[in-house]
Amino acid sequence: MQITPVILCGGSGTRLWPLSRTALPKPFLPLMGDGTLFEQTIRRFAGDTRFAPPLVVAGAIHMNLVIDQLGDAPGARLVVEPEGRNTAPAIAVAAALLPEDAVMLVCPSDHHIADSAAFRAAALAAAELARQDFLVSFGIAADRPETGYGYLRRGDPLPGGFAIREFVEKPDLARATTYLDSGEYSWNGGIFAFRAGNFLAELAMYRPDMAHLAAESVAKGRSEDPVFHPAPESFSVIAKESVDYAVMENTRRAAMVPADMGWSDIGSWAALAEALADKGDEAGNIRSGDVDLIGCHGVLAISDGPRISAIDLDDVCIIVSDGEVLVTTRKGAQAVGKLPRAVRQ
Amino acid sequence: MQITPVILCGGSGTRLWPLSRTALPKPFLPLMGDGTLFEQTIRRFAGDTRFAPPLVVAGAIHMNLVIDQLGDAPGARLVVEPEGRNTAPAIAVAAALLPEDAVMLVCPSDHHIADSAAFRAAALAAAELARQDFLVSFGIAADRPETGYGYLRRGDPLPGGFAIREFVEKPDLARATTYLDSGEYSWNGGIFAFRAGNFLAELAMYRPDMAHLAAESVAKGRSEDPVFHPAPESFSVIAKESVDYAVMENTRRAAMVPADMGWSDIGSWAALAEALADKGDEAGNIRSGDVDLIGCHGVLAISDGPRISAIDLDDVCIIVSDGEVLVTTRKGAQAVGKLPRAVRQ
Repeated sequence: MQITPVILCGGSGTRLWPLSRTALPKPFLPLMGDGTLFEQTIRRFAGDTRFAPPLVVAGAIHMNLVIDQLGDAPGARLVVEPEGRNTAPAIAVAAALLPEDAVMLVCPSDHHIADSAAFRAAALAAAELARQDFLVSFGIAADRPETGYGYLRRGDPLPGGFAIREFVEKPDLARATTYLDSGEYSWNGGIFAFRAGNFLAELAMYRPDMAHLAAESVAKGRSEDPVFHPAPESFSVIAKESVDYAVMENTRRAAMVPADMGWSDIGSWAALAEALADKGDEAGNIRSGDVDLIGCHGVLAISDGPRISAIDLDDVCIIVSDGEVLVTTRKGAQAVGKLPRAVRQ
Repeated sequence: MQITPVILCGGSGTRLWPLSRTALPKPFLPLMGDGTLFEQTIRRFAGDTRFAPPLVVAGAIHMNLVIDQLGDAPGARLVVEPEGRNTAPAIAVAAALLPEDAVMLVCPSDHHIADSAAFRAAALAAAELARQDFLVSFGIAADRPETGYGYLRRGDPLPGGFAIREFVEKPDLARATTYLDSGEYSWNGGIFAFRAGNFLAELAMYRPDMAHLAAESVAKGRSEDPVFHPAPESFSVIAKESVDYAVMENTRRAAMVPADMGWSDIGSWAALAEALADKGDEAGNIRSGDVDLIGCHGVLAISDGPRISAIDLDDVCIIVSDGEVLVTTRKGAQAVGKLPRAVRQ
C-alpha cells in the first residue's frame, strides 16, 4: 500500500524575516535556487509509485500559493486550516481524512534535504514501523552540538530503527556536546510516519478533547474536491499543541529511524547560508540580486532590488527586501525573531 | 586688517558614498547633526569681526547649494569654477580677486572642527605669519599613527609657529608610528594662510604657467556681483595641482602653526563614526533614520528611508541611501572609493 505524504505548511516564518512574511512565508520562497522549499518537498515524492499523491495542509491565505506551486500534481488533496493550531490538530484532520490503514508520512514543507534517496530510504523504513503501529519520528544525524533542536535518545533496536528511550527539549551547549559525543542522540526533525487509525487512537488516549474536536471538524467540514475545509467552529477551538507534546512524548510505541540526508530546517539566515555553502564563490560568499563585495568571506547577501555593497565582512548576512534592511552576523541570526519588525508584517 | 576666509568646496565625495554623490557632496550633507559641514565652516567665522565675509569657491553644479546654505551672509562672495582643477588654481583665482595685502585663510568646507576657539586662535597666529610673507599650513595635532594623511615636520620656531622642515607624503604604519612618537610631526590638514600677493608671487616663481592662466581667467572673467566667473577657456586648462604640490613643497618660506582643535576630515564612514562618538548610545552606536539594533557596539547606521535592523555587529557602518545599501567594517571604510558604484553617480 502506498505511503501518503502529508505536507504541513504552517508556521509564521519570522526567522527568515524580512524575506519571509505572513503573506509569503518560508515554504513558498525560492531560497535554494531550484524552486521553493515547498516545490522541492513535493518533488521529493514525484514519480515514485511507492508514494500516493500528497495531502497538503495549509492556511487559507496560502491556498493560492499552494495551488500555484503544486502545479500539475494529479490526485493531490488540500486541507484548508481556518487558522493555525500547531501540528497535532493538522495531522489529526489529515489522519481522519485517510483510510484507517493508510500510512501517512508527515513532512514540514520548509525543510531542505540534500539527499533525496536517503530521505526516501528512511521514509520506507519509517512506514514499515508505522504499519506495525509504531509512531515513528525521523532521527536526524547530528553533526554539531546544536542547541536549537530537540533530541531523540535511542533505545532498543527495532527492524529498520530504534525505540525512542527519551525525548529531550532543546539542550544547552554543554549537554548538546555530550549528546553529540555519546552517539546515542539524534535531532528531532519533525518528520513522522503513522498509521492513520493508530495516530487517532493514540491521540484519543492522551488528548481526548483534541481527538474529539478534530473528528468533529472533519464530520462537519465541507468538501470541495480536491479541497477540504474542516469546520471552523470545531477546528479553531482545538488546543494548540505540537504532535511531539500531544502524542510522541506520551505514547509507549514511539520509534525512530535514523536519517543522514543533508537535512536543514533553514531555521535562520545562518542555516540558509550553511545549506547554500556549495553555491558560494571561492571565499564562501553567496549572493542573490545586485551585490558587490570587497574583502568579504562567508557573506550571504540577498536583495530584491537595491544594490548591496559590502566591504571587509566575515560571516555576515545582509537581506534587503521590501523596504527593510537586515544585517546580522550568522551567530546573531538566531535573534531575528526578537526584532520588533519581525512580528509585525 | 581683517582675515578673509576662502572656503573651498571642491572634491568628488566618493569616500562617503552612497550618501555623498556628485550632485550632493560631503560639504552639503547634514552629517554632524548641527547643520552641514559647509554651514559649520561658515559659522566658525560668524560674528567675529577679525574675519571679513567669506569668499566661497565652488563648482557650478553646487552653486544653488552654496547659496541656500550660506543663508544671510552679508558681503559673502562666490567664485564659480567652470570645472574642478584641484586646490592651487582655486586659491590662485581667489588671491587674484583680493587686494595684494589681504590675508586669506584657506579652508576646506568639509572638515569637522570640534573646538572653534582653538581654530580661531590658530587662524590668528597663521595670519600673523602670513603678513610676514610666510606660507602657512595648519599642523594638526596627531593623536594616532594615521596612514591616510600627509605629515609636516617641524623646523625652527617662529613667532606663533614653526618653519616647516619637511613635507612627508602618506607614510606606512611603521613610519607613522615613529612620527607620532617623535613629537616632531603634525598632520597636514589642508588649511592655509597666505598674503594674497605673496601667494601669487610664489606661484609665479614655481608654476609660472599656472599663475599666468589664473591671472588671465580673472582678467577675462565675468563679474555678476557677488558671483565671479573665471573665464573657462583659461581656467579649464590650468594644471590640476594641489597647493601643497605646486607651492608649499617648493617655497622657502613654508611655516606651520600647531592646531589642536578636535579636527577630522570626515574622510570615511569610520572617521564620521569617530567624530560622532559623543553622540552615540551607551554601546557607542550612532543612528540616523529608522534603525533597530540588537547586541551591536560601535555601529553607525544611517538610512534615508528603509528600516535598518542590525544584530550582533561590532564597528560596522550601514548606510542606506537612494537605492544603495553599503555595509562595511570601520577598517573596510577606506575601500569605499574602490567600489564600482562609488565612482559612477
